[in-house]
Amino acid sequence: MNKNPIGIFDSGVGGLTVFKELQKALPGEDLIYLGDTAHVPYGSKSKGTVIRFSTNNVLFLLERKVKMVVVACNTASALALDYLRGVFSVPMLGVIEAGIAKALQVSKNKKIGVIGTRATVNSASYEREIYVKDSSIKVYAKSCPLFVPLVEEGMLSGKITSDAVDLYLKELKGKKIDTLILGCTHYPLLKKELARYLKGVNIVDSAEEVALYTKIVLMQRGLLNPAQKKGTRHFYVTDEAAGFNRLARLFLGGIIEKPKVISV
Amino acid sequence: MNKNPIGIFDSGVGGLTVFKELQKALPGEDLIYLGDTAHVPYGSKSKGTVIRFSTNNVLFLLERKVKMVVVACNTASALALDYLRGVFSVPMLGVIEAGIAKALQVSKNKKIGVIGTRATVNSASYEREIYVKDSSIKVYAKSCPLFVPLVEEGMLSGKITSDAVDLYLKELKGKKIDTLILGCTHYPLLKKELARYLKGVNIVDSAEEVALYTKIVLMQRGLLNPAQKKGTRHFYVTDEAAGFNRLARLFLGGIIEKPKVISV
Repeated sequence: MNKNPIGIFDSGVGGLTVFKELQKALPGEDLIYLGDTAHVPYGSKSKGTVIRFSTNNVLFLLERKVKMVVVACNTASALALDYLRGVFSVPMLGVIEAGIAKALQVSKNKKIGVIGTRATVNSASYEREIYVKDSSIKVYAKSCPLFVPLVEEGMLSGKITSDAVDLYLKELKGKKIDTLILGCTHYPLLKKELARYLKGVNIVDSAEEVALYTKIVLMQRGLLNPAQKKGTRHFYVTDEAAGFNRLARLFLGGIIEKPKVISV
Repeated sequence: MNKNPIGIFDSGVGGLTVFKELQKALPGEDLIYLGDTAHVPYGSKSKGTVIRFSTNNVLFLLERKVKMVVVACNTASALALDYLRGVFSVPMLGVIEAGIAKALQVSKNKKIGVIGTRATVNSASYEREIYVKDSSIKVYAKSCPLFVPLVEEGMLSGKITSDAVDLYLKELKGKKIDTLILGCTHYPLLKKELARYLKGVNIVDSAEEVALYTKIVLMQRGLLNPAQKKGTRHFYVTDEAAGFNRLARLFLGGIIEKPKVISV
């Protein structure tokens, strides 16, 4: 057992979808969330830069004595997690492996779609990890660069959003995928719109999966917090972006404490 | 006379619209362009953070011995230019004052619209500077957060773009503005679409204006380069974003030398 907090980092507010699921799955754990809002977004940046930003985020969380790090950002999971695991000894979990495990469970026809940022899709991380586990699966990946700005504008439905869904998903629909992995923390907010467009397709929200995985890792390593009371939650950002609270409400469905602005 | 280069910085590639006009207006000058692609975009970030990034950009350009700095980013012009002018002695020019001067020249009915990023619009810089010059003018400012991602996706026309134009410009159209200032370096690429929607409205592209202003400042201070041959052009970025060349083609209408990646 270990009473230290769990650290979660993301490029910005999107990782709050993961934070929300961690709260549900592990109500007794203390949680520290770091949103790197000074450098958001990661999805259009290079591997070297994403590794540099991610390393600084982990160092900040380690100063706060976290017992585990959850990389809540798909781009950082795709581009930096291997590097981070090689450098740091703290247990780490990314959002990609959890999403893949779920997709492999639910897909029947072995045609899986993945949507994400340009950096995530270009990294081919999903394809690579899926092929290692089952090379008979066909993976169709598509980057959807307009989805993050649409979500951040609160445009979760309407004409522009449904046209963007059609623009990006038409090809995957034509491939008859039976499972779609949401490979970006922002995309769960578009779940309704995506489900409407891709009737009958399993939609895998990595946020839910990673919360379950986190619990399993903590149990296996004997790191669960035995406390019965509700855990503490602390939020840090690297830029006092005026929109953080508006977005936090959108992602978390509730008001959070004012985040502290720190420098990493 | 002074043969040193002119430095131009922007949060990313958008400032290439300004670079393009500087090339035309001052063909004999050496130009150094710095795109802070590791930290792009500035438009959703706080004043303190934009000042920090901008200061580092100016310091880099000063190391390259520039004789003048053009702040090609509207957000940096709105949030950081006053600070930069207080700190550095090198002559500096932003995109805001140039755009305003032109708008005041062409507006007949004294109803001027301004569109820009959220940070630029929230700063109220345009309103403030216009009121100082002519308090009888009505200014209507509107942030258009989807325009930058649309331009960066190369979606300069089509259903989604024209719906976004309608979403953001409907109100300004209703106010019967006769002049619209494009308060973001990306927006000149949407000029056709905007002109179609706002028939008869003067559209002010700050990039063209700032190039003329730069020439005037250099002349007034005796800093023009007397060389008759074509000036050199150098490009620097803070992140080797894979998309830079694609975007440079879009903004500059031609292929440029591979930008050098530097750290600021």
